[in-house]
Amino acid sequence: MEAFSDGVFAIAVTLLVLEISVPADSADDLLGALVDQWPSYLGYLVSFSTIGAVWFVHTVITEYLHRATSVLIRLNLLLLLLVSFLPFPTRLLAEYVGEIEAGRISATVYGVNLLLISILLSVLWRYAVREHLVRPDTTDADLAMLTRRLTPGLAGYLLMIALGLFLPVAAVLGYLLIALYIVVPFAAIRRPASPA
Amino acid sequence: MEAFSDGVFAIAVTLLVLEISVPADSADDLLGALVDQWPSYLGYLVSFSTIGAVWFVHTVITEYLHRATSVLIRLNLLLLLLVSFLPFPTRLLAEYVGEIEAGRISATVYGVNLLLISILLSVLWRYAVREHLVRPDTTDADLAMLTRRLTPGLAGYLLMIALGLFLPVAAVLGYLLIALYIVVPFAAIRRPASPA
Amino acid sequence: MEAFSDGVFAIAVTLLVLEISVPADSADDLLGALVDQWPSYLGYLVSFSTIGAVWFVHTVITEYLHRATSVLIRLNLLLLLLVSFLPFPTRLLAEYVGEIEAGRISATVYGVNLLLISILLSVLWRYAVREHLVRPDTTDADLAMLTRRLTPGLAGYLLMIALGLFLPVAAVLGYLLIALYIVVPFAAIRRPASPA
Amino acid sequence: MEAFSDGVFAIAVTLLVLEISVPADSADDLLGALVDQWPSYLGYLVSFSTIGAVWFVHTVITEYLHRATSVLIRLNLLLLLLVSFLPFPTRLLAEYVGEIEAGRISATVYGVNLLLISILLSVLWRYAVREHLVRPDTTDADLAMLTRRLTPGLAGYLLMIALGLFLPVAAVLGYLLIALYIVVPFAAIRRPASPA
Repeated sequence: MEAFSDGVFAIAVTLLVLEISVPADSADDLLGALVDQWPSYLGYLVSFSTIGAVWFVHTVITEYLHRATSVLIRLNLLLLLLVSFLPFPTRLLAEYVGEIEAGRISATVYGVNLLLISILLSVLWRYAVREHLVRPDTTDADLAMLTRRLTPGLAGYLLMIALGLFLPVAAVLGYLLIALYIVVPFAAIRRPASPA
Repeated sequence: MEAFSDGVFAIAVTLLVLEISVPADSADDLLGALVDQWPSYLGYLVSFSTIGAVWFVHTVITEYLHRATSVLIRLNLLLLLLVSFLPFPTRLLAEYVGEIEAGRISATVYGVNLLLISILLSVLWRYAVREHLVRPDTTDADLAMLTRRLTPGLAGYLLMIALGLFLPVAAVLGYLLIALYIVVPFAAIRRPASPA
Repeated sequence: MEAFSDGVFAIAVTLLVLEISVPADSADDLLGALVDQWPSYLGYLVSFSTIGAVWFVHTVITEYLHRATSVLIRLNLLLLLLVSFLPFPTRLLAEYVGEIEAGRISATVYGVNLLLISILLSVLWRYAVREHLVRPDTTDADLAMLTRRLTPGLAGYLLMIALGLFLPVAAVLGYLLIALYIVVPFAAIRRPASPA
Repeated sequence: MEAFSDGVFAIAVTLLVLEISVPADSADDLLGALVDQWPSYLGYLVSFSTIGAVWFVHTVITEYLHRATSVLIRLNLLLLLLVSFLPFPTRLLAEYVGEIEAGRISATVYGVNLLLISILLSVLWRYAVREHLVRPDTTDADLAMLTRRLTPGLAGYLLMIALGLFLPVAAVLGYLLIALYIVVPFAAIRRPASPA
């Protein structure tokens, strides 16, 4: 399950670059054409950071697991389905975030995709804890901390989806902050666990 | 063999998103353009679920194997060839399933690809059992159950291919149900085998 | 080195399907449009089989190795560069093999790519043998057999490149036969070595 | 972390071929059209060699590591973000390196991407050394050599970026030389370490 998941994360993250391009007739003003592509770079950065963060959380969860059930495997496939889908909303964002009406729609679609990923990650973890799939030597403090760390992401995404209805670009920057935030706190959990 | 196969499954599943896009001039009515793409989402969902299910069955089979012959490796390459091909019929489906004549043709091509994948998976398993490539500690009950579980898929695909000549979209939903069904029963087999 | 190589082989093989498509306005006669794409299917089949065969030989070679030098790693990168390039000649073949002049050119470019892959595989193996990088317990008979098996491919590719100047499609079928032939003989070598 | 990184390197390197294509109406003079694509082949060669070299250095660094911190993981994600981005400047280069003004711009963008990759690789290594994440049995001579080897690349990239403002194609050839140079010296370090 881990090799397959890692593969999907790695591919989803690398496919993002295919969405970036300059118009075909940009030879006269390539610099201007490159600058005009800023929503593409922003989308690339946010989606890369988010998938990277999700991959990181996924790795932490997998490390705590000591067995898998078919339900867990199906939840994991559903998570991967949502992660693999992200390049499409990213492309929408890159193309339409500067428009008024279409900007709101693309920011919302993007935010909903991120929210669903975040929910599934949370469900996956809670299910694993409830079904005693985590390693017996995991302390309650570790369990509680991981559970607690996954929650603010959900609230953050809901808030940013609402913000995106008025200020799409600001919402996208918010998504970037959430992704960066997610990677940070796990450090504290992980460091003592991996001096092997 | 497993790393290579896992890689192909992971890539095939992640490439599916590249087939989804809205027409270039959708800024005025992005929401409408997004709704119009429903066949793309359906195709993504069904193909992702099917490849996910095939990957799952493949993992179960690989777990039971304790050695490989060149015939098995070639059967496996043939299976991967068919799985890698699926993004093409998926794209056809996304584009043409709403048409009358082309809808039938795309649903049939899609169904035949799924049927061939299913046949190959079955052949691979039967070959492995007959040539005693499975682990000696596998019980006859396990062997019989896996064999029995792989059979209804074949009948289901044949039925859906026939249905697709009249109701393409209904057939595609049928393919989704088969994929979801395939992932379910293996749970019962796998759970006791993996408390490691 | 193996994980990276396996990844490149798996991706190269799975990207091939992206080259297959029907023209945008095929709704009226989708069946006809699908039939017209036969060079695409043929290219997919031949390139998939060839990369599959090369992956297989590569796996056998890697199994015999017990250490690597920087020259070996660079030869391996060069091999992967040539394998990764194959989707481009495959696309040329799919588009132009039916034309008279362009058919010859595309078949030649394709054949030269295959020939170079084959040469590199041979060089890699001979280098490993000469530098004593293979496992000490490998018998001389094994070494000789693998060396001998890799040679006819070279002659076959040269022959087919010449044939392709007159009959491009026949040459492509010849490339398919070579790929299928390459996978066969290794069975005899590998079977006794992997009852683990 | 290694499986994910290896995946990203392998995919980035294999996606490069998707940027190569001949114009749609090249049947009359396919040979001419193929020759005209020389900037595409050059870009493929340089980017493949560079990513190959970075992968190689990354593997060497990973081998020396015996534990990871969250900062290291984030530096590594940033490195992968820059490596995954390279196919875009490669496409720019392939399309515009022959133009006067656009040639300079595309060579500069490409060079800056390479420089950033090189800086991050250097930062990653220095951070690992300073934080004592390398294996305790690593000699000071090994540490110093790896640090010293990573430095000329930086100077080389700066020089070539400046050259690219006048002679874009020459700069690209310079990038190729740097990539080839990077792969060479590590041989001396690695050989004694891997006779396992």
